Order: sequence, then structure tokens, then C-alpha cells
Amino acid sequence: MTTRRTFLQTAALGGATALFSPNVLLGATRPKKDRLGVALVGLGYYSTDLLAPALQQTKNCYLAGIVTGTPAKAETWKKKYNIPDKNIYSYQTFDQIANNPDIDVVYVVLPPSMHEEYVVRAAKAGKHVWCEKPMAITARECQNMIDTCKKNKVSLAIGYRLHHEPNTQEYVKLLRDGKIGKIQMVSCSAGYRDNRTNHWKQTKELGGGVMYDMGVYVLQGARLATGEEPIAVTAQQFTSRPEIYKNGLDETTMAQLEFPSGARAAVQTSFGMNMNYLYVTGDKGMLKMEPYSAYNGQTGEYPGGKIQHPYQVPFQQARQMDDDAASIMAGKPMLVPGEEGLRDIVIVEAIYKAAKNGQRVKIA
Amino acid sequence: MTTRRTFLQTAALGGATALFSPNVLLGATRPKKDRLGVALVGLGYYSTDLLAPALQQTKNCYLAGIVTGTPAKAETWKKKYNIPDKNIYSYQTFDQIANNPDIDVVYVVLPPSMHEEYVVRAAKAGKHVWCEKPMAITARECQNMIDTCKKNKVSLAIGYRLHHEPNTQEYVKLLRDGKIGKIQMVSCSAGYRDNRTNHWKQTKELGGGVMYDMGVYVLQGARLATGEEPIAVTAQQFTSRPEIYKNGLDETTMAQLEFPSGARAAVQTSFGMNMNYLYVTGDKGMLKMEPYSAYNGQTGEYPGGKIQHPYQVPFQQARQMDDDAASIMAGKPMLVPGEEGLRDIVIVEAIYKAAKNGQRVKIA
Repeated sequence: MTTRRTFLQTAALGGATALFSPNVLLGATRPKKDRLGVALVGLGYYSTDLLAPALQQTKNCYLAGIVTGTPAKAETWKKKYNIPDKNIYSYQTFDQIANNPDIDVVYVVLPPSMHEEYVVRAAKAGKHVWCEKPMAITARECQNMIDTCKKNKVSLAIGYRLHHEPNTQEYVKLLRDGKIGKIQMVSCSAGYRDNRTNHWKQTKELGGGVMYDMGVYVLQGARLATGEEPIAVTAQQFTSRPEIYKNGLDETTMAQLEFPSGARAAVQTSFGMNMNYLYVTGDKGMLKMEPYSAYNGQTGEYPGGKIQHPYQVPFQQARQMDDDAASIMAGKPMLVPGEEGLRDIVIVEAIYKAAKNGQRVKIA
Repeated sequence: MTTRRTFLQTAALGGATALFSPNVLLGATRPKKDRLGVALVGLGYYSTDLLAPALQQTKNCYLAGIVTGTPAKAETWKKKYNIPDKNIYSYQTFDQIANNPDIDVVYVVLPPSMHEEYVVRAAKAGKHVWCEKPMAITARECQNMIDTCKKNKVSLAIGYRLHHEPNTQEYVKLLRDGKIGKIQMVSCSAGYRDNRTNHWKQTKELGGGVMYDMGVYVLQGARLATGEEPIAVTAQQFTSRPEIYKNGLDETTMAQLEFPSGARAAVQTSFGMNMNYLYVTGDKGMLKMEPYSAYNGQTGEYPGGKIQHPYQVPFQQARQMDDDAASIMAGKPMLVPGEEGLRDIVIVEAIYKAAKNGQRVKIA
């Protein structure tokens, strides 16, 4: 167990060992744990229905604490998951988490507009940070989150579950191995019918709009498929429910991405339609995944056969958190570091600009 | 058999019977034929490898004549298909076809830049006209072709083989029957790697550019899927082989179509990539066809099952020509009249304009 004392020793060591990666440092100097304690910040649907159940399946981490502004939720979770009172925080008491050796990782599952604040506060409390996607609303916020975690020598991972999913990993490897040759075109769609009206996804100030939410999946589809970063975008946005998606909020976004190799992508994302597929055209064949971003059942095919891993994990999020906890304990880099989340937000910002102006927007 | 005399009687009658459709008129006054004689104009790949073989399978029409500027081709075809000398024309002698009762239909299979001229000349010769896609380069040409055929009381059909293809007909029916509900999004890609460098498809003045050629397939995909006409487009064009696709010629076009209902389409077409699929998202499910525009083997699926007609016709073009010949003989409207070809060219022109200016273009 890490005690407050060993934690403070570790923190104190930080400044003098800038030559070492913070992860290596922490792995080397913090007493080894068998598994890490995770505190979930924000107990909405994703924490309740996916992360908490997933944390009952994880081997390298467990649900150690919660941070919530709703006392009734605290009571429910406390009973359901046997969480001690000392590991339950409100947003007011949150910073005291610095003194709690049970909590190794803070997982920020708040609306995107609050990500920067809570990632920064968690990092300053000396905790490793996992942050749900989208990483933030602006690239500037993302950069501050990255910088603050670096400065405080804590790891930062973004909650991109698909990077940890075997079928996704396999299609990416097949593409990188050249199984369909040079990538020429990607068509990727991700969407579902969201019938909520006042969730953060439907609230502009909280980071709403489909391009922020489902949008990062199609950007990931295009970026993972090409293995490149886009250099320019064009985009179109619209809504079938203007009474819900107002003030520039997008129910549906279509975007076209240009990559340095000449590859292009057409991506579509929506809160109004059910869509879930990835088509990758190469000069030696085609690879497709359908569904490609579901919570389970990803399958695909390519000229060499099927992509259908027989893995059995009810929650993809369990794999994600076990991977990230293992990397932290081993002092290794995160599979999906803050920089990866930032790359998507740079593109998301360009897409909103392109859609608003009706013009092609270059990405630096 | 129609003689020159009955033909002239028919033509003379025309002016006095404007209340009747020209097809009905012709059907009523021309002596009945068991099958129609077709003259192919332009003996390139499509006539040689597809239409002529298909005309050996047709029941309602047959290969009666040819029009070619290449004497060696005339000789080859004459021997191969037993075509009498009197039914072989050059481009100089073409108009004399008016006096040839063996020829009921002139099928224009020339580069798109020559479609207007030969459709007009064929119509003025009193022959029914079939015209390969794309109908022409401009909507103005298409309108003149339509008007001239109407004025001369001959039928005009565009060579859209897929309208005659059972799997295509089935998916259109399923969509119109509401099997996947209200159509929301269409993603459609059609392309192949064309390695020619000096074909008309690679020659701007002849009607080249992928949007004219494969492009009409993706427009058809979007229009047949939605059952609507687009009201605005955005588009992007590029090439991986600027030494071939120069002077504004497109190797690849991506376009986004807006439909009155709110449905959208993302279409991709290319002479540089092999692509062939149609994904239709409705509010009650998804329908996909893959391949959707091949010369054979169209298959699809939707929530209600598979789309896979067991029909056995080696050449889709045989079905197309038999349908069109039957309609002419029965005095019925063409399944794919000139107006249908015109609709696509209106959109193609808007897409080139949108791609060139980088702006959304409204379609009147």
C-alpha cells in the first residue's frame, strides 16, 4: 500500500528527476501495488452502466472511490460497491483526494466542458488521470491538461476503449502490414438515435454536439485506417430536430478529410441515425468492419479472411482500464496518451470551423 | 416490316397527332415487328465486349447494323455478326439510315461529347434512340436531345442498365415500401482503377472525368435510395495521377448531396480505386448492396433478409435492351427516358461547380 508518507516522498523526488519519465519514476519509487485504486468522477450513465460494472471485472485496478455532487448517488454507490466513506468526495472536497493513498487514479467522466478543470485538479493532487472522450472542447484545454500532468509527473490516458479492443487492434495491424496495399479512401459512419433533450450532449456550453461525442469515433476510424493525420477538412452539419440541436449544435456532421499521402476519408456521425461501419479502400483490396465502434461484436473482413476475435470480455472498458493500470504499474507510456486525444480535438475544431464557414480548413 | 413508305406516312402523321404520345402513335401505325433492329454507333469496348454479345441474347431486338469510322472494324463485325453491307454506315453516310427499314433503333455508344449530335441526327432520321450514359456533358445538350426526340416522335432511352437489374429493382422497392423507414443517410461508392491514358474518360474535351462516367452510378445510388432529387451539393475533387488527369479533369470526386426531406448522401467515385457499395440508413434499419453497380452479382441485405435474385442473364445489357425494345413495340414510355439522364447531368454540372469553387451549390 502507498502511504501518505511514501506518496509525499515520491512527489518530492519528482523535481529532481526530470530526466526520467514520470511513469518510470513512479513505478520505481512508489511501493508496488497489485492493483490500482480508481476513483470515478461523475456518476452519470457511463460510470453507472459501464465503468463501475467493468471495474468489477478488472484485475489490475478496482473501484476505490467516487466523486459526486449528488448525496443520494453517493449513498447508492456506497452500498452497492462497498465504498468506504473516506473514499467518497464531493466536488468541494475533491482536492483532498491528494491525501488518500487508496486512490491511485482519478477517472474523469464529467461533461467535456469540465474535463480540463478536473484533470488539472487531479494531476495537482498527484493522481494519475484517465479522462473520458472527447478530451476537451478546445485544443488549448487539451494542451493544458497534457502539460499539467507532465509537470506533476502523473500519467494521462484518454478513454478510447477501441484502442484496447482486439478486433480494432487486428484491423489496424492488417492495414499497417499492407494487407490491402496503399490506403486510398476511408468511409466511416458512427451514430445512434439519442432521444435525450437536456443531456450535455445536447447542451452547447457543456461540450455538446455530435462531432465531439460520436465524432471522435469516425476521426479515429479515419486516422487508424490511414495511419496519418489529416492536413485539411471540409464539413457539413445539419439537424432534423432544430428544437433540440440549436445555437450551432450539430445533430449530424459529415466531413471529408485529406491526408498527406493523398488518401481521403468521408465520415458521417449523428445523434439522429443509427450508423456503425468502416470501409477502407486500398489499392490491393478492401477492409471493412461492421460494427466497428460498438460496445461489443466488432467484426470485419478483408481479402485475407475474417476479423473476429473470440475474446470474451463483457465490458471493453475493463480491458481499457486493465491495460492502462498495467502500464502505470509497469512505468510504461499510456496506449492512448493525452496527445492522442488532442489530435482529435484539433480536427474537431477544424471541422466546426469548416462547417460554419462552408470552406476548406487547413490543419497546421 | 416497316417500309420507307410506311415510315414516311408515319412521319407525316406526326404533326397532326400531337395529342397522342409518339410511342403510341408509332406502335399504332407502324406495322408490328417481332423484334427491333438495332444499329450500334461507335464500336469501342462497350459495344464490342458487352452490347454486341448481349444482342445475341436478346429476344425483342437484334444487332441489325453498325456505324463506325473504322473500315477494318466494319469488316470484322460484318463477318462476326453477319451484318449485310447495306446496314453498315460510316459517320459520313450515317444520315442515310433514315431510309433503312431494318434499323428501328440507333444506340449511340460514342464519347459523351458526341452524344448530342448523334442522338439528334438519329432522331431526325426517324429512328428511336438509345444513348449510353452519361447522357451528355451539359444539361443544355440533354434538353436538346429530349426535345428533338419528342419533335421527331421517337423514343429516347438512356443506357442505365441497373434500372433493369432485378436486385436493383428489389432494393428500390424495399426502400419505397418503407422497409427501413424514413431514409436518413446514403453512403455510396463506385470506382475502378482505369489504367488507360488517352481514352475519352481521360480526355476533357470528349466528356472525360470520373464524375461523368462512374459518377452517375453514385448519383443513381443516392437518388434511387432516397427517391428524391438533391437540392444542393458540396464536392471535392483530386487525382493521384496529375499527369493523366489534368486541366480540371477529376480522377476522384467526393460529393455530399442534400435532399428535400433532410436526407443526405456522401458519394465517392474514382478512376483510381476499386469501390462498389451502397449503404442506406433509415430510421428503422439499414440496407446495403455490395456490389451494387457491377456487371453481375449484385447482392444486398436489410433487416428483412437478403437481396439476391437467382436470375440468370449473362449480360445485364440484354435485359436493358429487351425491356426498352418491348416498351417501344408496346408503345409504352421508356423505363429510363432522357429526362432521367438529364437529372443526373444537372447534378454532375453542380458538382463540378461546387468542387471548383469550394462552395455549396444549390440546384434549382
